[in-house]
Amino acid sequence: MTAIYPGSFDPVTFGHIDIINRSAKIMDELIVGVLNNSNKISPLFSLEERIEMLKDVCAHLPNVRIELFSGLLVDFVNKMGAQAIIRGLRAVTDFETEFQMAQINKSLNDNAETLFMSTSPQFSYLSSSIVKEVAFLGGNVDSMIPDSVRFKLLGKIGRFGKVEKV
Amino acid sequence: MTAIYPGSFDPVTFGHIDIINRSAKIMDELIVGVLNNSNKISPLFSLEERIEMLKDVCAHLPNVRIELFSGLLVDFVNKMGAQAIIRGLRAVTDFETEFQMAQINKSLNDNAETLFMSTSPQFSYLSSSIVKEVAFLGGNVDSMIPDSVRFKLLGKIGRFGKVEKV
Amino acid sequence: MTAIYPGSFDPVTFGHIDIINRSAKIMDELIVGVLNNSNKISPLFSLEERIEMLKDVCAHLPNVRIELFSGLLVDFVNKMGAQAIIRGLRAVTDFETEFQMAQINKSLNDNAETLFMSTSPQFSYLSSSIVKEVAFLGGNVDSMIPDSVRFKLLGKIGRFGKVEKV
Amino acid sequence: MTAIYPGSFDPVTFGHIDIINRSAKIMDELIVGVLNNSNKISPLFSLEERIEMLKDVCAHLPNVRIELFSGLLVDFVNKMGAQAIIRGLRAVTDFETEFQMAQINKSLNDNAETLFMSTSPQFSYLSSSIVKEVAFLGGNVDSMIPDSVRFKLLGKIGRFGKVEKV
Amino acid sequence: MTAIYPGSFDPVTFGHIDIINRSAKIMDELIVGVLNNSNKISPLFSLEERIEMLKDVCAHLPNVRIELFSGLLVDFVNKMGAQAIIRGLRAVTDFETEFQMAQINKSLNDNAETLFMSTSPQFSYLSSSIVKEVAFLGGNVDSMIPDSVRFKLLGKIGRFGKVEKV
Amino acid sequence: MTAIYPGSFDPVTFGHIDIINRSAKIMDELIVGVLNNSNKISPLFSLEERIEMLKDVCAHLPNVRIELFSGLLVDFVNKMGAQAIIRGLRAVTDFETEFQMAQINKSLNDNAETLFMSTSPQFSYLSSSIVKEVAFLGGNVDSMIPDSVRFKLLGKIGRFGKVEKV
Repeated sequence: MTAIYPGSFDPVTFGHIDIINRSAKIMDELIVGVLNNSNKISPLFSLEERIEMLKDVCAHLPNVRIELFSGLLVDFVNKMGAQAIIRGLRAVTDFETEFQMAQINKSLNDNAETLFMSTSPQFSYLSSSIVKEVAFLGGNVDSMIPDSVRFKLLGKIGRFGKVEKV
Repeated sequence: MTAIYPGSFDPVTFGHIDIINRSAKIMDELIVGVLNNSNKISPLFSLEERIEMLKDVCAHLPNVRIELFSGLLVDFVNKMGAQAIIRGLRAVTDFETEFQMAQINKSLNDNAETLFMSTSPQFSYLSSSIVKEVAFLGGNVDSMIPDSVRFKLLGKIGRFGKVEKV
Repeated sequence: MTAIYPGSFDPVTFGHIDIINRSAKIMDELIVGVLNNSNKISPLFSLEERIEMLKDVCAHLPNVRIELFSGLLVDFVNKMGAQAIIRGLRAVTDFETEFQMAQINKSLNDNAETLFMSTSPQFSYLSSSIVKEVAFLGGNVDSMIPDSVRFKLLGKIGRFGKVEKV
Repeated sequence: MTAIYPGSFDPVTFGHIDIINRSAKIMDELIVGVLNNSNKISPLFSLEERIEMLKDVCAHLPNVRIELFSGLLVDFVNKMGAQAIIRGLRAVTDFETEFQMAQINKSLNDNAETLFMSTSPQFSYLSSSIVKEVAFLGGNVDSMIPDSVRFKLLGKIGRFGKVEKV
Repeated sequence: MTAIYPGSFDPVTFGHIDIINRSAKIMDELIVGVLNNSNKISPLFSLEERIEMLKDVCAHLPNVRIELFSGLLVDFVNKMGAQAIIRGLRAVTDFETEFQMAQINKSLNDNAETLFMSTSPQFSYLSSSIVKEVAFLGGNVDSMIPDSVRFKLLGKIGRFGKVEKV
Repeated sequence: MTAIYPGSFDPVTFGHIDIINRSAKIMDELIVGVLNNSNKISPLFSLEERIEMLKDVCAHLPNVRIELFSGLLVDFVNKMGAQAIIRGLRAVTDFETEFQMAQINKSLNDNAETLFMSTSPQFSYLSSSIVKEVAFLGGNVDSMIPDSVRFKLLGKIGRFGKVEKV
């Protein structure tokens, strides 16, 4: 089975990496789809930076590749010849939004099945937004993101002038 | 019993129409209240367009009329001489927000009872925002909104320059 | 509209009475349906006792009558010529079970709409089981059930030999 | 990927069949594992009957086989050489129990990943217990279980002496 | 135990006051921490106004003091020599966001335990945003905020030109 | 503050121990209250065994003592001169049941405040029932309960004749 793991990955966290590692182990091929959400609120990292960070953390996984996509996720699923969408679930509010999206995607493309995996408990509180918020306030994010991502994140924040505590 | 079914209806979906048909069948009179949310984020459709689309899809229901309102919902309930507010519930997160609103409304006007109906399962993933997002990305919304609404929605989107896939 | 408010009422609590009062006010007729669950775990109060307690607390409501039913609720709805089922919702777990029942009932009888009302906040923690458990342990249930019900409940408990604290 | 879809299937419903069809389509092999819960509350159908009904409804799916299991699910996963467990999710309360089980299973066998699929909306209210309860009360279960299962279910109920309405 | 009760208090409501009174009763010292969220959406009341209103409503509680904070909550907990963070929970969606924050805070500072209290039922629908929205629309907020806060709120709204109904 | 941490502890798990350690650290005194639920389903371990196991795992905590109680929890709170009840929350369904109990207890004894702590993520799937079920089926419970408890649990199970895999 070829599966798509879609997201913004702004930036990739240990929560995402947990899902990537576990699903790569059971899938024939895993395509991490990086959303080029051109119209939405601007991400902290550029599309290129997000793809580069993902390539870094997935380098050891031979059956994983990183691709960008825009537009409807189900069109990307078709284009890649994939059979399933992988989503990590952390909590009940995730669950409801994700179920709604899964049903919309199924109604748009009957071949796009969504498979949910539960995030490992130790990462259940992580999200890209929380990581950025903690880092901006000078908190320690060592246990939330890999070193390579952390260096880039702190660089970004420095450029925005909030480095005193970091 | 006269009941109010309030909403933004930007635009009306098959989910709304499901609630309108089912509640019109058991109420003496149903007033669909279209919110003129002048201060909030601007809707895609003007108040007039939203009312016109609703009149269209409710034309076959003799005990349903469409009215606009602004300000507090409970004041509109009083002005219309209604006894109840109808709300469709799709999911747990709906449930909590809706309960909070029902209790606020009851505390503001002891005569404004809220009656909840569960959205039919096949429409449980629908919302006006989802419909707009799918349409903007070129997805097929035939199963989400009536033809008359779809033509108007595609017209809007065309004016915004994203018609290639539609 | 004629509506059915079904339940076991073993015994009736202030939470039930809240729903009865509020729905009787907006319905033409309200039929409180007392479930004769012959096969299930035996109730504390007999069917006759439960009906008598309900008649007591509903005596002041001219458009409310008490009826017993067994079998499928939707068959009782039909037999009574009712258009709707009233259910009180207290919490998210209520919500899910109740939605499942509403959809089953709708699928069994397309004319049986379920209307949910939110229990008033001060009664949101009440249930017949909690009241019985507290009373059995000698706790004060004055704020949970009417005096007439309380006397009968304490009588029952006395007969079961746990009266020392009561 | 070989996946296990475990359950009691007492009896199999259209909800189960929905998950079986959709996961068989994307898996190399799907093993439906029928739980021989010898110590628990006795099922309505014997293990043999449950397996036979499943074989019937899966006959058209070449990559699906039916196996019984007892003991720990993760031991069955290992014995079958499977990589994943498939579970259908209907609602928030499902979600929490299922997540707990997925985490227990992952902690017992790091190779046993659980993949969740959302039940199709039209089957979201179905469960084996609901089907049995409706059938026992004489309700119509045509839209809930296949004909072959229904005949067996009505036969069972007849033997228990409650056939008058069926 | 010294505990921190953090929030924006824009403005303080009867819901907040309920938590302050109940936790002050069982803690040695309670520090109400007013968030100076300089980068976020601008509050309706200035930091000084929010502190003043809190001092007013806490004047009768000798072991409560009001302090402002910015940056990470866990740094403020350390600086104050506190052992715990107090949070009021109203509903399931509160619960999930709050749990995520509690786990982030615990991971940032192992000495920062979060203690949750359930909001009293009669205040379970209250929030600063709801109070402001109702007041802006001319609704009666007597049962939601103390008189002293209400006068200031109506003053604010008057300055924004929406006083006709108030 | 003196707080009560009530439960059945049949047997105590790492989840319970997490809450005991963390609350003992911030409370003046913590009383672990072991419920003598004489009328309910019989526990696997006797009252004496459960108290002994708790004394074992709490031996290093000077401000923790173990007491048995029966009847209403709020009466036990009073008798112990405590000001608060500590409860661990793992998930949304916990949350709702626990909130109901907290409100009942508050209504029975206005001095009995309930303070909730979130279970550490790595223990969020643990419960005494799950531990017993896994152990009965021959699964490894090393990561769920302390060694001293595990020996007693395996002894119990052996006596019941299911030791082959253990």
